[in-house]
Amino acid sequence: MLPIPTKFTLVVGHGEGDKKLTAFDAALLDAGIGNMNLLRVSSVLPPKCAFENVFKLPAGSLLPIAYGSLTSDVPGEIISAAIGVGIPEDPSSFGMIMEFSGFCTKDEAALKVEEMVREAFAMRSLALKEVKVKSIEHKVERCGSVIAACPLFYETTGGGY
Amino acid sequence: MLPIPTKFTLVVGHGEGDKKLTAFDAALLDAGIGNMNLLRVSSVLPPKCAFENVFKLPAGSLLPIAYGSLTSDVPGEIISAAIGVGIPEDPSSFGMIMEFSGFCTKDEAALKVEEMVREAFAMRSLALKEVKVKSIEHKVERCGSVIAACPLFYETTGGGY
Amino acid sequence: MLPIPTKFTLVVGHGEGDKKLTAFDAALLDAGIGNMNLLRVSSVLPPKCAFENVFKLPAGSLLPIAYGSLTSDVPGEIISAAIGVGIPEDPSSFGMIMEFSGFCTKDEAALKVEEMVREAFAMRSLALKEVKVKSIEHKVERCGSVIAACPLFYETTGGGY
Repeated sequence: MLPIPTKFTLVVGHGEGDKKLTAFDAALLDAGIGNMNLLRVSSVLPPKCAFENVFKLPAGSLLPIAYGSLTSDVPGEIISAAIGVGIPEDPSSFGMIMEFSGFCTKDEAALKVEEMVREAFAMRSLALKEVKVKSIEHKVERCGSVIAACPLFYETTGGGY
Repeated sequence: MLPIPTKFTLVVGHGEGDKKLTAFDAALLDAGIGNMNLLRVSSVLPPKCAFENVFKLPAGSLLPIAYGSLTSDVPGEIISAAIGVGIPEDPSSFGMIMEFSGFCTKDEAALKVEEMVREAFAMRSLALKEVKVKSIEHKVERCGSVIAACPLFYETTGGGY
Repeated sequence: MLPIPTKFTLVVGHGEGDKKLTAFDAALLDAGIGNMNLLRVSSVLPPKCAFENVFKLPAGSLLPIAYGSLTSDVPGEIISAAIGVGIPEDPSSFGMIMEFSGFCTKDEAALKVEEMVREAFAMRSLALKEVKVKSIEHKVERCGSVIAACPLFYETTGGGY
């Protein structure tokens, strides 16, 4: 079986590019995940997966990640993305990750994603301890992109990286 | 290299939510895969991968999965999803997985996905032994979602979970 | 942590099918990746990842892959896809992979993807040694699909496959 991630963090980024994919790439770089191979997952916080404020992985790593993103080439548009992680009351339980993106402010995006986390916990009759949220907004110049993400990674031992 | 899955099953689910992502989440829960990290793949049944009627994995597992899904917020709409797995005549060969979703009945979805499996076998000049199909339909109330999926997983030893 | 790929190649394919998913399947087959489980990644060439002209993996393998693809059911339309890999000057650095698809010729697609690779290197202030590009075009008959992809895989030892 594939190894279950043991660590998570929350990152956000925004950026501009010549094309939609390079704008997305600029947002990834700003979020600190531009040099990794993102493997998009949908979207559960494994039990005992611990929050780390910083994370550093080798370039090219296959990184399981849940994210919301939006890219627009309409100058002047406000685009936002938010990521929310619900931490369970019971430390042996899993939690839930929700993502949102839309043409709104970062505060509106954060509010929506928090509601979604609460709904996901309610559906499972899981007691919620805390919702960690990060959100970001960007005003498009030429072609802009936002991302809000929850990278899932692994305990590493030693000083290799 | 990443380990090749040795087991598969077929699941379907439907549900309602406040938003499209939470409706999708409700469908995942109904299908029994709401507490795992779905890693979407496209879509081959590995050789000797065996069907299991039930499957149980730890919450937060990275689960390779092929699926068709549809979410709608138009009350009254009928949405359907189907998953089909073609089992090869030759037990040492691989098989093919196809997914379908649309605004139709579950029987129409099942028929389409079976045609797609037959076409995939014909393209490869593979002899087909059997097509396993599961399909589901849902009449949207506020915001509804359907999923039909083929989780791919691994032999587990012992009673760990 | 998930193992970091050590090899890459570039493939292109096109094909026709009865439905969009089977047209995509025909393009995958034409590209030589139709019998594997594609795990889409976004899109970094790991350091020291080496180019191999041919690659052969067991059917059903989980294959990390970056790709651009387009499928159309409008007879007569020209569809194209291109994949570009930027190789860094510094052999210990990572590189970048970009993908593109559109309603244009394969030469236009190749040009766009090369520009995107150059932009991704410029954003990172990375020195570029070479851009490897493959592109393909297809004139739709009934329902056609193109794919241009960069499979990422692993050193294998012995003659197992």
